[in-house]
Amino acid sequence: MTSVRVITLLTDFGTADYFVAAVKGVILTINPRAYLVDITHEIPAQDIEAGAFTLLTCYRDFPSGTIHVSVVDPGVGSARRPIVVSGGSYYFVGPDNGLFSYVCDCETRRHDRKPSYQVFHITAGEYFRQPPSPTFHGRDIFAPVAAALSNGIQPETLGPRITDEVRLPPLAPLRDESGKMHGRIIHIDHFGNCITNFTRAELPDSGLVKLTVNGRVIETFRQFFTDEDGSRTDDGGSPGEVFAIWGSAGFLELAVNRHSAADLLAAKRGHEVIASV
Amino acid sequence: MTSVRVITLLTDFGTADYFVAAVKGVILTINPRAYLVDITHEIPAQDIEAGAFTLLTCYRDFPSGTIHVSVVDPGVGSARRPIVVSGGSYYFVGPDNGLFSYVCDCETRRHDRKPSYQVFHITAGEYFRQPPSPTFHGRDIFAPVAAALSNGIQPETLGPRITDEVRLPPLAPLRDESGKMHGRIIHIDHFGNCITNFTRAELPDSGLVKLTVNGRVIETFRQFFTDEDGSRTDDGGSPGEVFAIWGSAGFLELAVNRHSAADLLAAKRGHEVIASV
Amino acid sequence: MTSVRVITLLTDFGTADYFVAAVKGVILTINPRAYLVDITHEIPAQDIEAGAFTLLTCYRDFPSGTIHVSVVDPGVGSARRPIVVSGGSYYFVGPDNGLFSYVCDCETRRHDRKPSYQVFHITAGEYFRQPPSPTFHGRDIFAPVAAALSNGIQPETLGPRITDEVRLPPLAPLRDESGKMHGRIIHIDHFGNCITNFTRAELPDSGLVKLTVNGRVIETFRQFFTDEDGSRTDDGGSPGEVFAIWGSAGFLELAVNRHSAADLLAAKRGHEVIASV
Repeated sequence: MTSVRVITLLTDFGTADYFVAAVKGVILTINPRAYLVDITHEIPAQDIEAGAFTLLTCYRDFPSGTIHVSVVDPGVGSARRPIVVSGGSYYFVGPDNGLFSYVCDCETRRHDRKPSYQVFHITAGEYFRQPPSPTFHGRDIFAPVAAALSNGIQPETLGPRITDEVRLPPLAPLRDESGKMHGRIIHIDHFGNCITNFTRAELPDSGLVKLTVNGRVIETFRQFFTDEDGSRTDDGGSPGEVFAIWGSAGFLELAVNRHSAADLLAAKRGHEVIASV
Repeated sequence: MTSVRVITLLTDFGTADYFVAAVKGVILTINPRAYLVDITHEIPAQDIEAGAFTLLTCYRDFPSGTIHVSVVDPGVGSARRPIVVSGGSYYFVGPDNGLFSYVCDCETRRHDRKPSYQVFHITAGEYFRQPPSPTFHGRDIFAPVAAALSNGIQPETLGPRITDEVRLPPLAPLRDESGKMHGRIIHIDHFGNCITNFTRAELPDSGLVKLTVNGRVIETFRQFFTDEDGSRTDDGGSPGEVFAIWGSAGFLELAVNRHSAADLLAAKRGHEVIASV
Repeated sequence: MTSVRVITLLTDFGTADYFVAAVKGVILTINPRAYLVDITHEIPAQDIEAGAFTLLTCYRDFPSGTIHVSVVDPGVGSARRPIVVSGGSYYFVGPDNGLFSYVCDCETRRHDRKPSYQVFHITAGEYFRQPPSPTFHGRDIFAPVAAALSNGIQPETLGPRITDEVRLPPLAPLRDESGKMHGRIIHIDHFGNCITNFTRAELPDSGLVKLTVNGRVIETFRQFFTDEDGSRTDDGGSPGEVFAIWGSAGFLELAVNRHSAADLLAAKRGHEVIASV
């Protein structure tokens, strides 16, 4: 019996064109039992780091065996390699440009800092949609390869193992000589919460920490967005203060009750966040 | 045999973050045979009434047994209760903040004004994703509970029955002493049609009614958007007049052929609509 | 055995309302084994030509037997007919307003210019959701008819065959007396690439061709977006020149490496593109 296999899609394609549909149609033609889940198609165009971060925040919520197809691919058609990463009981299919970098770092940390993933350079053209368009590897290489994996093809079959895959700089903040930690805003979510790259590993004693972003100091830590008794749920008028909160993806977030912290802080992705005791 | 069970999702999460994907991944991990349908993730942030209305307009189009997961949840992490509502051969899973209020009103009307639904306070933490994040009950409580229901768990197992669930004011317009009905625009759709809270129950004789919105009087009722013979289908230039029409969700709408009635009327959600004979 | 059947949806409904959910719920109620794929719901409101083009670019990527439901329907409720088109091992369900015109042209070309599709006027009201709303045939006619087809109902059962279906003007460019070809921009994609209606049939020798759009001359043809060796992948600063490229849907596109060609050319959909040798 072949079980239904989940294949997720994360791209910068948007949802107004035929791109996502073409990828799905190709997969379903090869494996009619694939179950497709959109992670998002709204990664900012060609923003590899943003794609890598969003994938990091949810890949482990999917069933073992899930195949994650991720396509943020400014180098499509050039010499950049198509790859499959096998790690953490998942497969990842996409371009070799760092998109799976944070996932690989995470899997390494989870296994006592021993690398626990394998990367394969996809060269087995017999699995491609023919002829592959030089501008749409999502449809012509990544989709059929993901479908082949979901049909039980082993990654070793798709091409040689490599160890020089492209990596992004690690996500973690840097500590300076004075002991201050220099992080940054890595994502601003739909609600205007500013997600930083601080984790509990860097800030075990978050209660004692002072955060500075755009010249503004944040010293309040809270456990959830609204007040403990929910008493402010009718107060839509006053934005209240910006506070820090451990977010659901494990990163420290800057937030405001029922308002956009990004607006209040005039914060943009990439802005520095300094933590000091 | 476990049949494939439909689980719908309605949220204010947007589709650019990892939120929706995480919810889906958690559900599919617990019930790989669940079939997920997005109602929408574009409910305005933290707008419970808008979420309640959109759910009302389509929940009964789904197969019996469908589990509707709805998360518009400004009070996440506070004392507000997570609940399951069982009614009308559907289950509803989400926060106790009024989000299922219009559905409950509708089920009551459908059963001769006798309440025909049951509400359960979800307390059985063994069904939660561990540890539940105080800021993302969608992923950590509502998703796994919905998956459990789809696996055949009975709602009684999830926690005690309650009868003091939070309710929104009823959706219906109010009649004043002079006999005028005071309604409002409860939704503006993608095409700019203004959906009011008038139903045929309040306006059985719609042909005789005069509507006033933003100082403008509307006396024309039509049956469909274009003219009867389709003769105006090439006339994209002139907006024509605003007319009233019984919309597909059972509510009176204000519309214009091929243009946005909301733009022409400078109408916003919440604006008053007065009906008089 | 009934196999899982793919049903795609392409509409101008947007994704913020209950429209798409209602269509899906109706289909799943009639055929719980249907597998639904969104092509897009962001066709510009009531823009039949845009819908016809997007459908053309991906319909053949889906498995044989796929049912394509397409609803861009300014004439809903008027005399315009609901139709099923059977062609190319696919079914198409929607309004008779030209939406399937490019697909029919394509199927005709693929079969040596002999029409190879059949059109049926849907009249068998017993398959409709009752009573059909005059403003939402997507939910009340097209959805249940598509579900019936996916359950094995033959299109002949749904109504009489017709041969006078509405057609759009052909997509191809026109040649003037001097030999110049007059095409146009038929789509601007998410990345700002301008897709023209030139195919290799009109421009077999693309290397010799000069393109003029908005007074600007384009003589560079490239094979993919980035430079051959990927060397420009770090150069986000300079937009570089606009070039022509054969796009993944078989049409000539105007593009710029990592920037929006539409912005640089001030190009809009419908703008003329002239090709001369």
